[in-house]
Amino acid sequence: MAPKASSSSRKTERADKSFLWTRKDLVGIDELSSEEIVHILDTAESFKEVSTRSIKKVPALRGKVVALMFFENSTRTRMSFELAAGRLSADTLGFTAAGSSVAKGETTLDTVRNIEAMGVDIFVVRHSEPGAPHMLARKVRGAVINAGDGPHEHPTQALLDVFTIRQRLGRVDGLTVAIVGDIAHSRVARSSILTLRKLGAEVIVVGPPTLVPSAIAAMGCQVSHDLDAVLREVDVINMLRVQFERFGSQLFPSVREYSRLYGLNADRLARCRKDVLVMHPGPINRGIELTSEVADGPNSCILQQVTNGLATRMAVLYLVSQCVA
Amino acid sequence: MAPKASSSSRKTERADKSFLWTRKDLVGIDELSSEEIVHILDTAESFKEVSTRSIKKVPALRGKVVALMFFENSTRTRMSFELAAGRLSADTLGFTAAGSSVAKGETTLDTVRNIEAMGVDIFVVRHSEPGAPHMLARKVRGAVINAGDGPHEHPTQALLDVFTIRQRLGRVDGLTVAIVGDIAHSRVARSSILTLRKLGAEVIVVGPPTLVPSAIAAMGCQVSHDLDAVLREVDVINMLRVQFERFGSQLFPSVREYSRLYGLNADRLARCRKDVLVMHPGPINRGIELTSEVADGPNSCILQQVTNGLATRMAVLYLVSQCVA
Amino acid sequence: MAPKASSSSRKTERADKSFLWTRKDLVGIDELSSEEIVHILDTAESFKEVSTRSIKKVPALRGKVVALMFFENSTRTRMSFELAAGRLSADTLGFTAAGSSVAKGETTLDTVRNIEAMGVDIFVVRHSEPGAPHMLARKVRGAVINAGDGPHEHPTQALLDVFTIRQRLGRVDGLTVAIVGDIAHSRVARSSILTLRKLGAEVIVVGPPTLVPSAIAAMGCQVSHDLDAVLREVDVINMLRVQFERFGSQLFPSVREYSRLYGLNADRLARCRKDVLVMHPGPINRGIELTSEVADGPNSCILQQVTNGLATRMAVLYLVSQCVA
Repeated sequence: MAPKASSSSRKTERADKSFLWTRKDLVGIDELSSEEIVHILDTAESFKEVSTRSIKKVPALRGKVVALMFFENSTRTRMSFELAAGRLSADTLGFTAAGSSVAKGETTLDTVRNIEAMGVDIFVVRHSEPGAPHMLARKVRGAVINAGDGPHEHPTQALLDVFTIRQRLGRVDGLTVAIVGDIAHSRVARSSILTLRKLGAEVIVVGPPTLVPSAIAAMGCQVSHDLDAVLREVDVINMLRVQFERFGSQLFPSVREYSRLYGLNADRLARCRKDVLVMHPGPINRGIELTSEVADGPNSCILQQVTNGLATRMAVLYLVSQCVA
Repeated sequence: MAPKASSSSRKTERADKSFLWTRKDLVGIDELSSEEIVHILDTAESFKEVSTRSIKKVPALRGKVVALMFFENSTRTRMSFELAAGRLSADTLGFTAAGSSVAKGETTLDTVRNIEAMGVDIFVVRHSEPGAPHMLARKVRGAVINAGDGPHEHPTQALLDVFTIRQRLGRVDGLTVAIVGDIAHSRVARSSILTLRKLGAEVIVVGPPTLVPSAIAAMGCQVSHDLDAVLREVDVINMLRVQFERFGSQLFPSVREYSRLYGLNADRLARCRKDVLVMHPGPINRGIELTSEVADGPNSCILQQVTNGLATRMAVLYLVSQCVA
Repeated sequence: MAPKASSSSRKTERADKSFLWTRKDLVGIDELSSEEIVHILDTAESFKEVSTRSIKKVPALRGKVVALMFFENSTRTRMSFELAAGRLSADTLGFTAAGSSVAKGETTLDTVRNIEAMGVDIFVVRHSEPGAPHMLARKVRGAVINAGDGPHEHPTQALLDVFTIRQRLGRVDGLTVAIVGDIAHSRVARSSILTLRKLGAEVIVVGPPTLVPSAIAAMGCQVSHDLDAVLREVDVINMLRVQFERFGSQLFPSVREYSRLYGLNADRLARCRKDVLVMHPGPINRGIELTSEVADGPNSCILQQVTNGLATRMAVLYLVSQCVA
């Protein structure tokens, strides 16, 4: 399966020092080459060290302004970008749609253009509308980073995931990764499948038929509705969050039923490879996607993902900032 | 009309290097002399350059604390002040009335005095009560900047507007400026009329009789209810925002009717002077006050107003900070 | 009464230069020795000077991150900690439960662990659950400072209070302090009683029987239901806030009745010692706990308490930061 992708990524996992990043925006994994993805990971590697220092700061973005444009709520991703920007010595400007000019009927583009006119250099955008960051990227002079556009993409989450896989397992190319849960509505799943395929991994998406559209196979992944059937062959198992707050109980017959069929517990973990890597984008519903035993156990890298998110976002902020006029 | 103001401002548009700013507060245009207004504009000019640097920072207010006291919601003005303070290297402290001690029944003065006791140097105050910043200015040791007090004044908006006019047209003195829309409820209109008159411009306020009280003529401006009648004679046309969120449809027979009579479109623009300057304090209701063609066209300086807002607010923050004990 | 505490604290009020702070957390006064309390006060003393400088900053916590984890609303305490952290050159990260991962069903521990994984060094935690900061302190590597846990403790408020008493009256040991109001539901009262007793002061708690449980005497204080009876013997009178927003009118027969029996007015003040110190944790309900005449009069140190809160919180942030691995 996909030998070509595999072979190309094999080459790129060796860092190419002469690679030149040329994108002012990061709106989706879709448009990135495997070389670009690896360059982001390598840059993140070099920033990871900063977070281990006593004074966790570098002056790379001093005097630059990063606007955190969250048209849709977020705590974790916003905090991660805010800390990443601060660690690069950038100033940050918060924006939330509630009570803002958006509520006064202003268009998204006008809002962003107005804030750009205040001298903002980089926009980190979360928006409910798929493609909103792409549209903005074409229209503004500043850099645009997609922090989640509806169910479409969430590229920095996918990047921090492969960063973590590479860190823990030494490579991505040739691995088999299961992504389990609500694939249909998940921007994390979409961006992850794209990233993993570009870096030469096999991807198996697993979940109930209502949540795993068969069309997803066109992205180059296998589809399964039986978690138990794939446990033995995977190197990585990424458990997606059940988004109760979005879908209520509409899509699941019952939470207990979902958990019984697609939850990862000690029993299922025992049937995986010994060093299988357990991931979750958070926040966890303990006892549903994962039991606490698994979430807090030695195979889990969930908190490392969070730590690596900072280094990855520092890398992305730094790279795009170099391409803003 | 008003030849005396005109002649005095003509003098003051030449920068007076020996002028000494002595106010610890900026609560309204009402109390400023034309010399003081020009001094703010000249100071803003010198700060404008900072925003074009790669590292957009000067250490002028390092170690000072600016509290953004928004007793009433705002996105744009708050962000502009926050960035202006940051660019001067001040620390900022956000405050919003929702969920605060205000909700616990504390008086505005007690709230501000308590925050002052924490070592705040400058208060940027937006409040629904006309005169609230003036009262605070008398009672606290720190500097108070009015960021909008009900329908009363919004001095920094008026200052950034004349800064933009001077930048684009080379002068303010002797120009004719139309202010169009809801004059009765607009603090922007009040502050703008005062500023423009003090600097020697003629002002024509234009809008439906329900929104343009005839008493406004006492401020030294002409009153018109017919936009088409004044188009040919104006150098600047400032379109006020229709504040749907405040008044609903109470004051307008219909939006379409308002737009037909008082909206600026390509047809009306064609009947203005070729270099007429089109302004709007934002956020725009596209298709109501302005068509997109006009808002985004060459006569519009709407985004420049936003950019200049930063330099103007840096100037005001800097000047008052020099007068805090 | 309590001669032992008194004599031990007499010793400790002389600063011991060789004292070594060893706690990574400050979760309650309960666990502190009188030596530790005095060491915090002495450290605060040395930080107080920073706030009088023109550039109010020291680099002590540069490159450290302080997360303000307010699971429960607060304006004043959050601002005070935010400014204290900024004055030590730390970066701060705001967190409010509303709209966050907490709303998505995440546990408090998972939320804090995730934020810790982003590289946070110190957590300032306010939580409705008594003991929540204690639990977190045991589970995370970072430092935890309790900024109020339900009705349990609010240690930094108690510390800033004794700092202010020591500053104004020269000592704490041997003084008689009345704490007046809703003792039963007040974390401020609990932490204050503990602090004052450890430093050798006598404490009289005063309030209506519904709000002053007789079991409180076990903390080593006298209980009184008659304010007038104790006025003459107190050196300090600390008026607690009536928390209308929490209890409505359930616990008081009427506000007027409460104020008549337990409010401090000029008449009552005249019956106190001439130099009695009047305190209040804020925000004040003017005319209820205190008349304006008393609140703004020469015996009041209410705004000094706020100012000292900053120095005290700088001291606590600094001390715990020295013990984080």
